[in-house]
Amino acid sequence: MGMHEFQIIQSYFTSPPLRADLGVGDDCALFRVTQGHQCAVTSDMLVAGRHFFWDVDARTLGHKALAVNLSDLAAMGAEPLGFTLSLALPAVSEAWLADFSGGLLNLAREFNCDLIGGDTTKSVASLEHNGLVINITAFGQVPAGAAIRRDGARVGDDVWVSGTLGDAACALALLLRERSGEVLSVAEALALTALRPRLECPMPRVALGAALRGVASSMLDLSDGLAGDVRHVLQASNADVEIDCDALPLSSPLKNLNLEQECPLWHAWRDALTGGDDYELCFTAPVTQRDVLAALSIHVGVPLTRVGRVVEREGEAPNVLWRSENSPEGLVHMSEWRGYNHFS
Amino acid sequence: MGMHEFQIIQSYFTSPPLRADLGVGDDCALFRVTQGHQCAVTSDMLVAGRHFFWDVDARTLGHKALAVNLSDLAAMGAEPLGFTLSLALPAVSEAWLADFSGGLLNLAREFNCDLIGGDTTKSVASLEHNGLVINITAFGQVPAGAAIRRDGARVGDDVWVSGTLGDAACALALLLRERSGEVLSVAEALALTALRPRLECPMPRVALGAALRGVASSMLDLSDGLAGDVRHVLQASNADVEIDCDALPLSSPLKNLNLEQECPLWHAWRDALTGGDDYELCFTAPVTQRDVLAALSIHVGVPLTRVGRVVEREGEAPNVLWRSENSPEGLVHMSEWRGYNHFS
Repeated sequence: MGMHEFQIIQSYFTSPPLRADLGVGDDCALFRVTQGHQCAVTSDMLVAGRHFFWDVDARTLGHKALAVNLSDLAAMGAEPLGFTLSLALPAVSEAWLADFSGGLLNLAREFNCDLIGGDTTKSVASLEHNGLVINITAFGQVPAGAAIRRDGARVGDDVWVSGTLGDAACALALLLRERSGEVLSVAEALALTALRPRLECPMPRVALGAALRGVASSMLDLSDGLAGDVRHVLQASNADVEIDCDALPLSSPLKNLNLEQECPLWHAWRDALTGGDDYELCFTAPVTQRDVLAALSIHVGVPLTRVGRVVEREGEAPNVLWRSENSPEGLVHMSEWRGYNHFS
Repeated sequence: MGMHEFQIIQSYFTSPPLRADLGVGDDCALFRVTQGHQCAVTSDMLVAGRHFFWDVDARTLGHKALAVNLSDLAAMGAEPLGFTLSLALPAVSEAWLADFSGGLLNLAREFNCDLIGGDTTKSVASLEHNGLVINITAFGQVPAGAAIRRDGARVGDDVWVSGTLGDAACALALLLRERSGEVLSVAEALALTALRPRLECPMPRVALGAALRGVASSMLDLSDGLAGDVRHVLQASNADVEIDCDALPLSSPLKNLNLEQECPLWHAWRDALTGGDDYELCFTAPVTQRDVLAALSIHVGVPLTRVGRVVEREGEAPNVLWRSENSPEGLVHMSEWRGYNHFS
């Protein structure tokens, strides 16, 4: 690398703060929280070889490292203010640093969110481990008491999701096959091209999250798949949920790939329900809010889909009932596709 | 390891928040900043094999990981509010987790500072690299406009330091020799026992930092040695500085070790000036504040020592003039001890 820590920070990670009072360069950064607001904080650590490929494009990596944190702020209904970045760096090139910080700071500017501090250190690497570790802690603000938490879902509420589900999971599965040397079919290659940005450049639903304050009763962002993530809401809200699989919002590329491969639709559901990296919002809202949500969806420009409803807790542990008109008994058994590999 | 991320967080890193509105368990944590205050933020990443020994005691590691961040808050005059913790974990035992979180949360309680969120992930490790990475982002609050920044030093101001300097550096040098198989002399072994807590369990000068608001004109914490760190103040404040080496505060164990080994005093100065990990505060203050500082030192219970003064900038780059009555020309040349190894 050859560059000293201070040079790296000065060259690639210092931009004049848009709203913070004091940015990079002192013992601490300083920012203000608007009166009557709470500060919201979230933190994510990404490890090379675990959360991303060693050789992923540095620009998309910079984008995604910040995007996943802004998605957490969105999921509370918070407005981004700033973030800190810590990097354990292997011997990377200046070109890599320029791309990484470019992707990162572009997204930051888009959301008026300042890089206000952090830490840069040389990592300990070995042949099979390049040692890159990225940690971002993001700060936002939300009017006091208006944050949309996981524990507010009430029996009878609708369950909603934004955008489409399963795109990133499908892209990842195709990418893994391609990297292992397999030749993809034309349909698969087309699907990968269409869906890859959903895996590598997710756009956090910040405006939607803020617009849902006072409308949604509970919310989280989908990072590990709806099937698992919705249980966090149920756990916090002490309820169960019914999901209508026929209603799950699927993108055209994902649906088309299933049709081409003559797979039953639930192969796409598996991506939509158990795949990670959606970074869509999942929220509950009273039935009385349906008209408001229809208008809000158009205003924010993000499709919203009603996929289920909150029901009374039956047992000890949170339970999700998966329904489908296309299934003989009207019920889908998750175990049917657990462990099934669509692409093998 | 065998434990799932959620279990680890629940078992070891969840304690009811003392002051935050919402702690671990949602997409974000929530806390309030007192009206009329700014939020101060700092972040530090520690990598095993670079910042600490693989086999360091987990309890002291947990303590130190938080202490270095609280020291940054102290250096702004900020009061700690909370922190997030991100861990990339190799296959560590539950005993390790219990010790690490114990050391961490003990210190957190002492400063009324909540662990309110973070991330736990499995690291990518190899034989020569156990892969443990720790990132803490700490935030505090300070009355708006009262933060003590690096850019406030004025020509004529005194330069002060808290506590004693060089203890951690001396302990580290002795420890490295011991680990390499050398047998320490009795004097050295005694010095190591006395100074080791200064290396492994530094106590951040939080109360002192806050008490210096309105008194100090600039401040930072000493993590890389006074000789290097003071240049950050000079850079930001556009000034030079004269340091009186004879005035440097040295602990008895450090002085005694030098006497026993019949080393000239400047061997101890080298530790005091170029060694890291002091976590003392270095600040400037107008001459008119000397009496206030004498009283404040007694009130807070931390020794303060006047070690120099701020002078007009002479050249382009910041310059430090090292003075000593014991030196023939009254000047000490840093280059004399650059690269010199006290212990070899």
